[in-house]
Amino acid sequence: MQPIAEYLAENALNLKNELIEFLKIPSISCQEEFVPECRRAAEWLERCLTKIGFSVTLYPVSSRHPMVYAESPKIEGAPTLLIYGHYDVQPVDPLDLWTETSPFEPTEKNGCLYGRGTSDDKGPLYSHIAAAAYWMKQPNRPNLNVKFLIEGDEEGGDSTAALFVEENADLLACDYVVLSDSTQFAPGFPSITCGLRGIAAYELTLTGPVQDLHSGMFGGAVTNPCNVLCEILGNMFDENHRIRIPGFYDEVRRLPQEDLEAMRLLPFDDAGFFSSVGVEDGLGEADMTVHERITIRPTFDINGITGGYQGEGGKTIIPAWASAKFSFRLVPNQDAEWLTAALSRWIQEQLPPGITMKLDVEAQSGGLLLDLKRPCMKAAARSMEFGFGCAPVFTREGGSIPIVAKFSRRLTPNVLMLAYSQKTDNAHGPNEHFSLTNFIHGIKTNVKLWQELSIEEEN
Amino acid sequence: MQPIAEYLAENALNLKNELIEFLKIPSISCQEEFVPECRRAAEWLERCLTKIGFSVTLYPVSSRHPMVYAESPKIEGAPTLLIYGHYDVQPVDPLDLWTETSPFEPTEKNGCLYGRGTSDDKGPLYSHIAAAAYWMKQPNRPNLNVKFLIEGDEEGGDSTAALFVEENADLLACDYVVLSDSTQFAPGFPSITCGLRGIAAYELTLTGPVQDLHSGMFGGAVTNPCNVLCEILGNMFDENHRIRIPGFYDEVRRLPQEDLEAMRLLPFDDAGFFSSVGVEDGLGEADMTVHERITIRPTFDINGITGGYQGEGGKTIIPAWASAKFSFRLVPNQDAEWLTAALSRWIQEQLPPGITMKLDVEAQSGGLLLDLKRPCMKAAARSMEFGFGCAPVFTREGGSIPIVAKFSRRLTPNVLMLAYSQKTDNAHGPNEHFSLTNFIHGIKTNVKLWQELSIEEEN
Repeated sequence: MQPIAEYLAENALNLKNELIEFLKIPSISCQEEFVPECRRAAEWLERCLTKIGFSVTLYPVSSRHPMVYAESPKIEGAPTLLIYGHYDVQPVDPLDLWTETSPFEPTEKNGCLYGRGTSDDKGPLYSHIAAAAYWMKQPNRPNLNVKFLIEGDEEGGDSTAALFVEENADLLACDYVVLSDSTQFAPGFPSITCGLRGIAAYELTLTGPVQDLHSGMFGGAVTNPCNVLCEILGNMFDENHRIRIPGFYDEVRRLPQEDLEAMRLLPFDDAGFFSSVGVEDGLGEADMTVHERITIRPTFDINGITGGYQGEGGKTIIPAWASAKFSFRLVPNQDAEWLTAALSRWIQEQLPPGITMKLDVEAQSGGLLLDLKRPCMKAAARSMEFGFGCAPVFTREGGSIPIVAKFSRRLTPNVLMLAYSQKTDNAHGPNEHFSLTNFIHGIKTNVKLWQELSIEEEN
Repeated sequence: MQPIAEYLAENALNLKNELIEFLKIPSISCQEEFVPECRRAAEWLERCLTKIGFSVTLYPVSSRHPMVYAESPKIEGAPTLLIYGHYDVQPVDPLDLWTETSPFEPTEKNGCLYGRGTSDDKGPLYSHIAAAAYWMKQPNRPNLNVKFLIEGDEEGGDSTAALFVEENADLLACDYVVLSDSTQFAPGFPSITCGLRGIAAYELTLTGPVQDLHSGMFGGAVTNPCNVLCEILGNMFDENHRIRIPGFYDEVRRLPQEDLEAMRLLPFDDAGFFSSVGVEDGLGEADMTVHERITIRPTFDINGITGGYQGEGGKTIIPAWASAKFSFRLVPNQDAEWLTAALSRWIQEQLPPGITMKLDVEAQSGGLLLDLKRPCMKAAARSMEFGFGCAPVFTREGGSIPIVAKFSRRLTPNVLMLAYSQKTDNAHGPNEHFSLTNFIHGIKTNVKLWQELSIEEEN
């Protein structure tokens, strides 16, 4: 058996080049024109996983992009690890802010690979494929069955992966789930993510007059949908920056005191956090630390707003309509479906005469907190210590990976989120990048994890 | 001398065709790409007025589009009438709502001419050119010197026409000003406009993080400029729908009781007003009628708002910036410059940490109320009765014609606003149109006005 360090020394360049091939496919899932590119990414994975010895199937799903499913040759009686990832990426606009690279022409700089999807999630996902490639070449691979489930609708907001899991629980049956789609606490802190926020995303459209009107002739009497959109969404927070929708906090569960204290021991750098995004200070819920605000507390953010005249110069109109895309991050036990009903009622109650509303649900999923006391958590920690050379920390993350809650409820509570990306990687933004050191350390961690989980089961 | 009725019977088709030529020039003043078209419109006017016997000069002005100035051959000792209009038009988007015609291919339907600028202001302006063409052909034209001042920056919001008047008061010296850039009270009510609202238009840009951020990783702590824009602009009205900026109403002058009562005698149709724009009801200042709200009370309207992701699907970001174009309509004696300072302070005071603001002034002008007791008002009323066959009403209008206040202060208080357009003409909106009956009646009114004003002076 070839030691992993030696294997990586020989193969690092090939692995990087293969990852670059994958990154060049503009698999933006939410935009119609990229549907064929998403299929290309799925087919690329099919070839890649077939080549290393997996049997691969592309499943059509009710959302737009195929689900890639693969399994290693069956070892009877061995435990099963399901590796999850997604091949789709976020849109790339505004393009003019991509100063380091063109989004789909990955470029290496300062030890990082720049390009859309490098950090979220093609780079981390590929570290698991690389580990599989390593093990499948070894004469004595661990006593472990491995399945891959790689979706193409994670970024689009209309993922049906959860439904796929629900409907294919037998196919996906496993003892462990592992994924790398979260971020490290900070550089130098290998991290296992043990908490995620949920999400509820909406698009609200308010319609007023049948067409744009002259604001001189109609202004003062005809209700302006842009004004009303601002009034309603601008009324979301109270003076403590808490969300006003009645009952919003009723089911919000606080962390146990000991976990809160452990969290507060982590050296979270408020000033560095703000300066990394170019501001001096921020705004958030009263009586919460910045670290708590971004990980274990719910939020409300307008993601985009549009209405009326947006071109050069001015146009003095009352716009016919206005709309906003916005999202809440949710924490365990908030119920996204309850929120949709409460939100809809709350908006409706504020709607003045002359305006009609349309509220579309774009995405919904609950938050998650994992149990740190499970043996597999310790196996994951040992693997990461092997891969990165120091013990990991356990972190709670502010983002949402909707399918993880489904895994933990439907397949197994043994969900392992091994974080290889950095918060500063600009996932979802311009100049997204991924540390090549973390890439290599990640592969080592993944390789070790196969061993640890096969042994874990034997114990 | 040929009677005007006979002249119109012979020439109506030619006049309409010449107007159509003028309308076909897409002289959108606020968009850079149409700068050459605005010049074409000015040059078209130059040829047209030269042909009928005026001497014409195109003056460069500090805003973008030339000022057209023309004068009739000088009659010593005769009074002078200055005719004002504008050759520029509003942008045409959203294009897909132009169901009756392409904006710059004027089409005749149901007794109206459809196309951008038909009603605001090329059609009404051309009715004055047609009157001039008539009189210049007659052997005994009235004892009146006539000047035209036609600008190309009225719709752009950055008009420097007021400055031009200020700097060229000698050139423009006159005893009367007439313009047709306002609207009739209702169809069948020939109208003389005796009040206008002023305007103060702004663009507010709020900037937050240096780039769009992942709302999961940063949401809850980094201030969201879209959220803040909604909070601030959404806070503009109090529970009585009165504007919250401290001091905003301090200088608002109420109409004298008798004028208010005369206003209330006009058969303003609230239900028809709302249903004409496709809504059942509206929203406005407490204790005011709909007619008052749209004519003699100040307003606040967001004209356009933009920020964050506006494409297909969702993108869960905190946007780096958000901006809104908005405008206040002002009434006599509100001071737009005072408002700019007060508004800026009011926004600044609400600005949370992590956000910077930029407030640009797009347009500023005061409101106006004319004295109904002046003899020229009666001359105008007689002219309109001749042109339309019934006596006109005096109306106050909610729109703004910034230069009119300047005329009345710098040149003469004898300003006559003869309204030929209808409120339902869709000025500034899609399917703008202009009644051809009003066009012909307008020409007759204008022809009569030359006589009336020359006699008026003799009396």
